[in-house]
Amino acid sequence: MSILVVGSIALDTVETPSGKVVDSPGGSALYFSAAASFFAPVNMVGVVGEDFDFGVVNFLQDRQVDLQGLSVQAGKTFRWGGRYSKNLNFRKTLFTYLNVFENFDPAIPEPYRRSEYVFLANIDPELQLKVLDQVETPRLTVLDTMNFWISGRRTALEEVIRRVQVVILNDEEIREFTGENNLYRAARQLLALGPEAVVIKKGEHGAVLIRREGYFFCPAYPLDQVVDPTGAGDSFAGGFLGHLAQCRNLEERSMRQAVIYGCCVASFNVEDFSFRRLKEIDRADIDRRVQEFQKMITL
Amino acid sequence: MSILVVGSIALDTVETPSGKVVDSPGGSALYFSAAASFFAPVNMVGVVGEDFDFGVVNFLQDRQVDLQGLSVQAGKTFRWGGRYSKNLNFRKTLFTYLNVFENFDPAIPEPYRRSEYVFLANIDPELQLKVLDQVETPRLTVLDTMNFWISGRRTALEEVIRRVQVVILNDEEIREFTGENNLYRAARQLLALGPEAVVIKKGEHGAVLIRREGYFFCPAYPLDQVVDPTGAGDSFAGGFLGHLAQCRNLEERSMRQAVIYGCCVASFNVEDFSFRRLKEIDRADIDRRVQEFQKMITL
Repeated sequence: MSILVVGSIALDTVETPSGKVVDSPGGSALYFSAAASFFAPVNMVGVVGEDFDFGVVNFLQDRQVDLQGLSVQAGKTFRWGGRYSKNLNFRKTLFTYLNVFENFDPAIPEPYRRSEYVFLANIDPELQLKVLDQVETPRLTVLDTMNFWISGRRTALEEVIRRVQVVILNDEEIREFTGENNLYRAARQLLALGPEAVVIKKGEHGAVLIRREGYFFCPAYPLDQVVDPTGAGDSFAGGFLGHLAQCRNLEERSMRQAVIYGCCVASFNVEDFSFRRLKEIDRADIDRRVQEFQKMITL
Repeated sequence: MSILVVGSIALDTVETPSGKVVDSPGGSALYFSAAASFFAPVNMVGVVGEDFDFGVVNFLQDRQVDLQGLSVQAGKTFRWGGRYSKNLNFRKTLFTYLNVFENFDPAIPEPYRRSEYVFLANIDPELQLKVLDQVETPRLTVLDTMNFWISGRRTALEEVIRRVQVVILNDEEIREFTGENNLYRAARQLLALGPEAVVIKKGEHGAVLIRREGYFFCPAYPLDQVVDPTGAGDSFAGGFLGHLAQCRNLEERSMRQAVIYGCCVASFNVEDFSFRRLKEIDRADIDRRVQEFQKMITL
């Protein structure tokens, strides 16, 4: 039931109305791994520079995350800086230094190739295709992406979408990819390319699971204060895949429950900067929040 | 179980990406009545000018809506014109001619004063207080309002809020009224004034029911195409109050179900201009959609 994730590892400088952190660990692979590790063993593939402090990922090793796929390259770690608006609905990228991430060419370690669950975090779709070529017969492959690849690598991205079972996008991204403003029509365009399910993330408005058979709506867990939205999407994906890896099936009920787990894990993540909250909590905290949440969304 | 509604009756000129209608019947009292009449007898109080064509409300009389509270004044009917943005999330008011509505001073006909359910649609809070003074002992009073009164009639509006049991607002309005960006903290500010429940309408993102004991989230019913959002809030309120009038209790389950009915009735309303769709459908259509919808929002 192990999960392979291939994505970025970054040192983020983030400003929100609640404060600021400098060179704080982040990136899609780290957020995803911190989230998914509550549910299943994780195999992480990524690249860092010689300046990376491995002390910050020690807690991941204690939580069944295998780091042999984490390669150290000469140079500096990927750095990103951003500032969120007062209501947290907009963020401005202040700088992006790809550094060692610029030439990231993911080599999947031999033991990782039999991972049953695969999360293609937000990287160049050409690289996502290379990852798919290296894995054997996963039970489930899930794709995330971003606007940058939608406009710049459309052909490759379409090819990845044809080859995965679940696509996770936010509302802006699916509108941009399809050119369709209506989310349900947009999702059906994606389903027509092959995937079994599309999950549309809507930030503070939750997420929708869309399959050929129908929809499932999940609101965002209500929080009195969001400190830092960075990593919400990747921690959502970690909870989502993590739960499915535990269920070992793709039945409708499991998928719906996975969306709920995703929303709850993401809700913890945004309660503090970086993945601090995901370090503090344990699986019982997540299960308690899921139970409490279910009471808010069912008759 | 009859429902009293006091609100506006208008002739709307509306442009949306789907087309345009001129002098089409609308206004909060009409939208609400068209929606609530599927559930319970409605007593409508409003004012029109001598130019109003009563033919357009004939269908309401066939549906247990009493129109003796509809007064005809010398002059023209209230007219409003607006244009929606391409994605329907914004609308621009092009003109507002209050006409006879400017001096609206609702007199509640004697038989209406014992209405068990009262909807104070979006009118001057001073008039809403006058309505409350005229009704006897309703089982449930529900308030709607808008930004115009929040900024211009704050003291009176606060007084109405203290006197009703349920406040229905959209996300912008509650943020403006409370000065609080976080919706849950904002809702608790309102609850502290006295109401038992706050319903926050979030347009395409559904609605949230907030009581002291907890939250209930209801997404919007997924539509492939929205033709005209005008009246969505009032038809939501009609489905919401209508269901509660049928339940004859304010238990948590009834309130949650009422939110679901509200969302479903509103979803029909926005499928065409004016309240055309609410004329076409029957109660069985609503119940079918509610059943289908419940499958999308529960595990």
